[in-house]
Amino acid sequence: MVQIPKQSAPSSPAQRPVPTSADVARLAGVSRATVSYVLNNTSAVRISEPTRRRVHEAAKELGYVPHAAARSLRAGHSRMVLMPAPTVPVGPLYSQFFNELQWALSRLDYTVVQYGGVGLHGDEAARAWAELRPVAVLVPGSGLGPEGLAVLKRAGARAVVTLGPERVEGAHALLMDHDRVGHSAGAHLLARGRRRIGVVMPGESGLEIFSRPRLDGVRRALRGSEASVTELPLAYAEEDAARLAARWRTLGLDGVFAYNDEYAMLLMRALQDEGVGIPDETAVIGADDLMLGRLLRPRLSTVHIELPSGRDLAELVDRAVRRPGAAPETHEVLGARVVHRDSS
Amino acid sequence: MVQIPKQSAPSSPAQRPVPTSADVARLAGVSRATVSYVLNNTSAVRISEPTRRRVHEAAKELGYVPHAAARSLRAGHSRMVLMPAPTVPVGPLYSQFFNELQWALSRLDYTVVQYGGVGLHGDEAARAWAELRPVAVLVPGSGLGPEGLAVLKRAGARAVVTLGPERVEGAHALLMDHDRVGHSAGAHLLARGRRRIGVVMPGESGLEIFSRPRLDGVRRALRGSEASVTELPLAYAEEDAARLAARWRTLGLDGVFAYNDEYAMLLMRALQDEGVGIPDETAVIGADDLMLGRLLRPRLSTVHIELPSGRDLAELVDRAVRRPGAAPETHEVLGARVVHRDSS
Repeated sequence: MVQIPKQSAPSSPAQRPVPTSADVARLAGVSRATVSYVLNNTSAVRISEPTRRRVHEAAKELGYVPHAAARSLRAGHSRMVLMPAPTVPVGPLYSQFFNELQWALSRLDYTVVQYGGVGLHGDEAARAWAELRPVAVLVPGSGLGPEGLAVLKRAGARAVVTLGPERVEGAHALLMDHDRVGHSAGAHLLARGRRRIGVVMPGESGLEIFSRPRLDGVRRALRGSEASVTELPLAYAEEDAARLAARWRTLGLDGVFAYNDEYAMLLMRALQDEGVGIPDETAVIGADDLMLGRLLRPRLSTVHIELPSGRDLAELVDRAVRRPGAAPETHEVLGARVVHRDSS
Repeated sequence: MVQIPKQSAPSSPAQRPVPTSADVARLAGVSRATVSYVLNNTSAVRISEPTRRRVHEAAKELGYVPHAAARSLRAGHSRMVLMPAPTVPVGPLYSQFFNELQWALSRLDYTVVQYGGVGLHGDEAARAWAELRPVAVLVPGSGLGPEGLAVLKRAGARAVVTLGPERVEGAHALLMDHDRVGHSAGAHLLARGRRRIGVVMPGESGLEIFSRPRLDGVRRALRGSEASVTELPLAYAEEDAARLAARWRTLGLDGVFAYNDEYAMLLMRALQDEGVGIPDETAVIGADDLMLGRLLRPRLSTVHIELPSGRDLAELVDRAVRRPGAAPETHEVLGARVVHRDSS
């Protein structure tokens, strides 16, 4: 076990210099190129077993770890796949998707890095990402414009993949159209005989990229029927829900798509506290198919959402990195189906 | 607006070469050093306004973005603060903390990067992190050993901060002792007159680092009283909760600390479906103070947890980076207090 030298008195910012591959080469009595070949496991060059061992031992003795950045400078590109860190709480769906993606990319010898982009938007964000010289960038949501894309490509990104509602010319696109989620919910409420349908629009900023297309999807489902749509702005707070519930009967709604399961739980509680009968008076449907919906009474109907598999996305990234000149791929990846329970 | 050249036929992996600072220097008719001074906004060197303008225009024309890695190679260290990406879903508490931390660090000119470490553990993980040459590393949970710490320091990390239950010799520590959470819950149930107390132990792996100290905290709270503790293994699944509820009366428990609010919701539903009276027959308390607890009936009692502020942590990181020889700091940062509602 390595002993950590006790750092006694406060001192200047000087530290022991970081060991370099040159130090390893010196100690092992080989060239720097040989160190690089051995530690990067290059199969193109034959190096004898004793030499390999000497290099590994010298690296261990000095505590040398290869420098990803230096390696990428030499290679002209990195193996880093960059994606912006989510700035809103992530549910179990996203979490599982991200773990799968990481796992699949690491098996293909990529490293996934999430970049904290609080306060960065659009092309400014792209410029910050470009500084890390990723070989691929996954961009959730919208916001990447043609200029941002150009910056990333000039900085060496071989693959840029957007995950969101729209394509960006020149980038690969995994289209995740939340219109479908709203369409499923709207069609379900219509089929259950509901005609005056409310759609919850969360008050929290950042959710519009999901809530607007979901609303559009409900409208699309009701097109040609006599049913009407009422937008219901709602913040994720008890008082707000209580206020909405208090004027519920004046709204005269017989069905509501509550944006997702958590908003549905919030609204259902407020409606029940007001004595509104669910589903008789008003049918309620959420989205995301979270566990909590099954624990509510009545059990919550919901739209189950399917995301692309992390493995498929990893393969798309790898394909794009290896053939950067190929035409951008576009795939529709969001699936939506209603899980009918007791609340609708 | 920059035009993106159409990439027509599939081609070889060759791309337009990435513009370098040398290209910018050539176009602007200045030295590479001048380019570096201007684009890194170095105040140490006086450079005339027309020259600055020429460099910026050349950089823009070529689409040049500075290379963070190259800059860190020159400077000997980066401004990258690395933290492992969470592998479990993160709640709103963590999400807010992380956003605050990112924001505070970016104001101090650091970049926060989350590293996907699925399948990496302990010293192996530390070695992978070291390759990115971060100037600071934040390590949640436990798992970093003295060897991993040494690897990080040798790779140039000036500050390593652990966030978890234990200190690692030589690293800064923000101690987050979940014992306190259990202690608050146990003391509350005792004060409510409960003497046969169950403690939910989640079946999901990865949660032991929270559930074991919470259990210890309950035991500590009951020490010296006649109350007893019963461990209740429970997976986050309806069937598991139903099985536990079915044998509830044979267990003879009059109080339960349900690990957190989500498990509390799961268990309460199963107990209510079995006709167990809450709180009369069994008092229930959760933890995390999530919105959903307020939406349950009876309203859920809970332990409110306070995390360190992102700004305080950012300041600790910056202090440690600027004085890497200073003695490691240790702070107790987790606060816990009971929010008493109707379920206990």
